[in-house]
Amino acid sequence: MSQPDPLDPTWMRRALALARGVLYITSPNPRVGCVIVRDGQVLGEGATQPPGGPHAEIVALRDAAARGHSVAGATFYVTLEPCSHFGRTPPCADALVAAQPARVVIAMGDPNPKVNGRGIERLSKAGIAVHVGLCQEEALELNPGFASRMHRGTPWTWLKLAASLDGRSALHNGMSQWITGPEARADGHHWRARSCVVLTGMGTVLADDPQLNVREVATPRQPRKAVVDARFALPENARLIDGAEVLVFTVRSDPAKAERLARRNVHTILMPAQQPHRVDLPGMMRWLGEHDVNEVHVEAGAGLSGALLSAHCVDELLVYLAPTLLGDAAGMVRMPMIDHLDAARRFEFIDFTRVGSDARLRARVAASWQSLVQGLAGETR
Amino acid sequence: MSQPDPLDPTWMRRALALARGVLYITSPNPRVGCVIVRDGQVLGEGATQPPGGPHAEIVALRDAAARGHSVAGATFYVTLEPCSHFGRTPPCADALVAAQPARVVIAMGDPNPKVNGRGIERLSKAGIAVHVGLCQEEALELNPGFASRMHRGTPWTWLKLAASLDGRSALHNGMSQWITGPEARADGHHWRARSCVVLTGMGTVLADDPQLNVREVATPRQPRKAVVDARFALPENARLIDGAEVLVFTVRSDPAKAERLARRNVHTILMPAQQPHRVDLPGMMRWLGEHDVNEVHVEAGAGLSGALLSAHCVDELLVYLAPTLLGDAAGMVRMPMIDHLDAARRFEFIDFTRVGSDARLRARVAASWQSLVQGLAGETR
Repeated sequence: MSQPDPLDPTWMRRALALARGVLYITSPNPRVGCVIVRDGQVLGEGATQPPGGPHAEIVALRDAAARGHSVAGATFYVTLEPCSHFGRTPPCADALVAAQPARVVIAMGDPNPKVNGRGIERLSKAGIAVHVGLCQEEALELNPGFASRMHRGTPWTWLKLAASLDGRSALHNGMSQWITGPEARADGHHWRARSCVVLTGMGTVLADDPQLNVREVATPRQPRKAVVDARFALPENARLIDGAEVLVFTVRSDPAKAERLARRNVHTILMPAQQPHRVDLPGMMRWLGEHDVNEVHVEAGAGLSGALLSAHCVDELLVYLAPTLLGDAAGMVRMPMIDHLDAARRFEFIDFTRVGSDARLRARVAASWQSLVQGLAGETR
Repeated sequence: MSQPDPLDPTWMRRALALARGVLYITSPNPRVGCVIVRDGQVLGEGATQPPGGPHAEIVALRDAAARGHSVAGATFYVTLEPCSHFGRTPPCADALVAAQPARVVIAMGDPNPKVNGRGIERLSKAGIAVHVGLCQEEALELNPGFASRMHRGTPWTWLKLAASLDGRSALHNGMSQWITGPEARADGHHWRARSCVVLTGMGTVLADDPQLNVREVATPRQPRKAVVDARFALPENARLIDGAEVLVFTVRSDPAKAERLARRNVHTILMPAQQPHRVDLPGMMRWLGEHDVNEVHVEAGAGLSGALLSAHCVDELLVYLAPTLLGDAAGMVRMPMIDHLDAARRFEFIDFTRVGSDARLRARVAASWQSLVQGLAGETR
């Protein structure tokens, strides 16, 4: 039986595409895809189902069985190391061992300390050839939040910004809604949809009264919403209070208001006030990491955006720029003045794309990403 | 003899590449490339030489002769309609007719009213098959300035801007030199090198004392320099006064200073003052168009950049963005406040490229470009 070259990325790319297909529905679990191949033929394939449902490897095994294929001697391409512990479902590594494949090719090791390397070990000990690291970066792109939560205890956070080419996000009279076009707004909703939490600040709630949910793309799951609201000033008729779960991070105690809001699925988190009227933003990120939040999508005004940047709570920028220059108008982020460029927040561009008539630029903190890569179980063994 | 498909862009792309190779040296003449092909074999090829030297068609004919090839019955691929008038050199259309090709494929008609369509007519009347419009956009990309000068009487002007991702071009203390990286600066010099004039304002001269010449890329020709200097305050020890030609646009008469500067190749253009201390910028552009300037590269501060934008004197933006956010710092352009986005200058993105660690975004005024396209001799006849 001819084995495919394990370094040929064709099948792993198919597994990654399957994982991309479940981007909106698996959290807090990672998005994983699996393709079972023998002699150039796909025997079965699948992707992780919503929490409580089967993981990708099990879906693929069932798919193969449904098609009447035995998978003994086949090669499994799986985008994340198979789990080796009992969570909501039994360990996938055991199911794989039982299926007796010749080889398992894994894109990235599991950053979960409960798994890290043990799934690989379980397979190796059963005499199955294991290869780790094929398309690792692409696999990590699908699950930076899961990796971050496991490795750092905090979510992976991106800051969405929309502005003119000269960095103006609103006119002097506050008019701002339509600087970028409808395609950019729809693309922004894709990023909302994949996140676990959409975060904003009270300035935006008061100015725009946003719904903060996903509307422009179809999704069976809505992310949670969160508001940084140091003074606990959230209007009880705010549109974002719509029955879906809302988290409010505050430093001001008002049990009666909290009680009223709780009945409407709004959960108030009273944070220790480090400074008066200031929510401890890194503390908030730790809280979110402890509460199963992988990815945070920030869509806020210049104040909270700047504060998150200054507190090193942003891992990635998602910037939409309209092809226009506004000159004298409001800026994108407010941060303390710096005297030297060395003090500036540095990112690394990872992608430029045209979205409608606008440009989308993605950039990330290189050190944050590297720490995720280094936290993965080692390559090729 | 099998004729190549005239719509196959392979040979035209080669002709365009040859034209790109003379980007820095032909002005005020357009950059043109020519490839002579028969039976899939290149018989001769060439590109326009510096003013007074032969045009692309003649260089290609001489190349074919030097290789011992007859070009009768061949196909000529030429990126611009062959000239039909006596300028510094005799008309190329006549030389082509004498060479007896079977077919001439032309990327773009000549926007020069002295030529427009007549070169094509001359060839057609001689019984040569002519096809116009293959790779027209790429050909126009090589010569927007020539087309603009012929069609509108003014140059094609791009504004170079460099800033952080949030549109800040200098810190509050004025520190600005190194927001973008060395690769972006070198790329900027490529754009200086292709231009006929590098334009700046007095604010930049006083703040940075720039040399304003091409240093980071190799070129046998330096563009002219120009300064908008309404008050005629140019310091006579400015570094840009280095023996190369400098144009100073002013509204203040000082014959003694003008006389001293003229001896150092600095030419003072006294403009009618529409407002005190204001150079009429559209008038300056007309002056440049009348004086053989095809392409203007603007590298100025927020004041002149904003004024040129407000006066509709900018056709294209060349924006370098560094992957950093600066927050409270100086903006890219100063323009009058607007109350509605409809009043904003709209461009159209044409290219995103990574340059070193920075992003380069090019955008142009769609209407300006369309007017150039419409000014060309018609497609396919």
